[in-house]
Amino acid sequence: MTNLQSPVCPLPRSHDEKIVLGHGSGGKMMTDLITKTFQPPLANPALNAGNDAGVVQPPSQAQLAISTDAHVVYPLFFPGGDIGRLAICGTVNDVAMMGAIPHYLTASFILEEGLEVAILEKVVASMQTAAEEADVQVIAGDTKVVERGKADRLYISTSGVGTVIEGHTVGGERAQPGDVVIVSGTIGDHGIAVLEARGDLGFRTELRSDVAPLNHLVREMLAVSDQVHVLRDPTRGGVASALNEIARQSAVCVTLTEEAIPVRPSVAAACEILGFDPLYIANEGKLVAIVDRQDAPKILEVMRQTRYGKEAAIIGEVQEAPVGRLLMKTALGTTRVVDVLAGEMLPRIC
Amino acid sequence: MTNLQSPVCPLPRSHDEKIVLGHGSGGKMMTDLITKTFQPPLANPALNAGNDAGVVQPPSQAQLAISTDAHVVYPLFFPGGDIGRLAICGTVNDVAMMGAIPHYLTASFILEEGLEVAILEKVVASMQTAAEEADVQVIAGDTKVVERGKADRLYISTSGVGTVIEGHTVGGERAQPGDVVIVSGTIGDHGIAVLEARGDLGFRTELRSDVAPLNHLVREMLAVSDQVHVLRDPTRGGVASALNEIARQSAVCVTLTEEAIPVRPSVAAACEILGFDPLYIANEGKLVAIVDRQDAPKILEVMRQTRYGKEAAIIGEVQEAPVGRLLMKTALGTTRVVDVLAGEMLPRIC
Repeated sequence: MTNLQSPVCPLPRSHDEKIVLGHGSGGKMMTDLITKTFQPPLANPALNAGNDAGVVQPPSQAQLAISTDAHVVYPLFFPGGDIGRLAICGTVNDVAMMGAIPHYLTASFILEEGLEVAILEKVVASMQTAAEEADVQVIAGDTKVVERGKADRLYISTSGVGTVIEGHTVGGERAQPGDVVIVSGTIGDHGIAVLEARGDLGFRTELRSDVAPLNHLVREMLAVSDQVHVLRDPTRGGVASALNEIARQSAVCVTLTEEAIPVRPSVAAACEILGFDPLYIANEGKLVAIVDRQDAPKILEVMRQTRYGKEAAIIGEVQEAPVGRLLMKTALGTTRVVDVLAGEMLPRIC
Repeated sequence: MTNLQSPVCPLPRSHDEKIVLGHGSGGKMMTDLITKTFQPPLANPALNAGNDAGVVQPPSQAQLAISTDAHVVYPLFFPGGDIGRLAICGTVNDVAMMGAIPHYLTASFILEEGLEVAILEKVVASMQTAAEEADVQVIAGDTKVVERGKADRLYISTSGVGTVIEGHTVGGERAQPGDVVIVSGTIGDHGIAVLEARGDLGFRTELRSDVAPLNHLVREMLAVSDQVHVLRDPTRGGVASALNEIARQSAVCVTLTEEAIPVRPSVAAACEILGFDPLYIANEGKLVAIVDRQDAPKILEVMRQTRYGKEAAIIGEVQEAPVGRLLMKTALGTTRVVDVLAGEMLPRIC
């Protein structure tokens, strides 16, 4: 049941109120949480109706792109963002990566008993700021509360629904030999910023997470070219994992040029010290695009005019073989395989 | 990112394999989990494409009904169901309650390190059985893994997208004085079955959860009447909370007739002993409908011919005042207020 419902005489709220099991009950406490914490910032007609599902009229009969993501990032707040902004942007971006315009989001919260309501309010405010920037509405929600020790304060799952922009077919299986690979900016910022927020770096940087909604960037790209073949946001597993996947899906080889890949000095330094490769570090406000070589210059030009594409660069190209492989031309002129990681490098980065 | 992706040389799986952080990494272990555990049972073209979002063509340009629910039920398995069946049915039902046909679901999993993969497989198989029964597809998914002690084995958030059946406008604000209230069957079965599975009852019953998809039942009802005003599945907080909400949303009074409400003897006995009121106990395979009085007989007739509506009954009516109130005519002939609960009676029932 959608639990962002209509008001019933809200209970008074103290300044240091904490989440208790009653906030997930379906009763007065839950209604109070909804009417005070969720509804005012996120307000829109479909949500405010307070029914079991939000009802909306999509703007066209286009195909729908539908995605979901659970967000368990630790810590909840980090330089440049927080779990709320991440939960909105992550799902907005997944929808946008299909060449679609995201319109409607849902958000389901799992709250740990004892969570400060003030923290939740801060997260919801951040969600709304991100939703406004992305021009999407949260039209349905749900709240569950689990006992102390049965979650880690706060998890948010979001889902998104968008309409595919007509005249475009974007998908991981559409990379073609001869295409070029574009990245929208510096890589690894999010992962290293979160590591720093955990105190795991052992030193301080000025780094901020790149978490951002990329749907407007995608729309600009598709407006100048109908030859954008693949879009993907390289989150967990980074650019290396995303491009490995695409190489497999499209049965092609992707070859990167090491010196073309934009990496901030602070990210490079942190990776050097920690023994990480920035290619595997999570991004939350970057995309990789595989596009027709002829259209690449105009796509790059329009990307660089947008807020989140200023440092866009061509970083590689697509070849026929070896099929399913990601290769790297190093600064030394050698070529090496960039493989998929087996297991976990940085848990709970998103 | 959608993490139900295309295959890469799956690793061998031992019989007692457990979830580790690497299963949430974006690397080989995650791909292995996806290709072995999620994709085979849930397979469909949109999911199998392995992109950031599932792309589908909705069958019409009707309004969309979109809902979401987090599922944290404890224990994971209970008589009559499990968290997987619950996660599908809960969201299918929320979409159906808007007079819509659910088509597409997404599922995001939060797994605790140490969870047995065999348990996850059992849950996913149960999801697929329920999805087939409901005639919906899971077209996108996500998996996150958190450290041991940071979740309670397994949480599932599902979202659902459906198309509103034309010619019908169903919503909590549409109850009208003179309407009658129908319930589709016995109340309280789910909550008491889960309590029993926890060992909290102190005695044994033969009770099973009613968890079921109600979308086909809804379709039958709407096929015989365009005067179904409100539909709601009384989950957390039970029939009492659902009808209180509707009374507020529609600014009407709902009056129930105590002896008309179907309650199994074992539920009544358990409630008697525990001091609960079945009206507040969660259901996961029941709906309440508020319909035009003239159409009620034919709606009831068609409900009783369906699998999940055999024991449907008229249990009350809608009046003008007192506005926002749920009242009960007792067997003794008195009338009492059935209020909203303040806090929590049965945590983690769904």
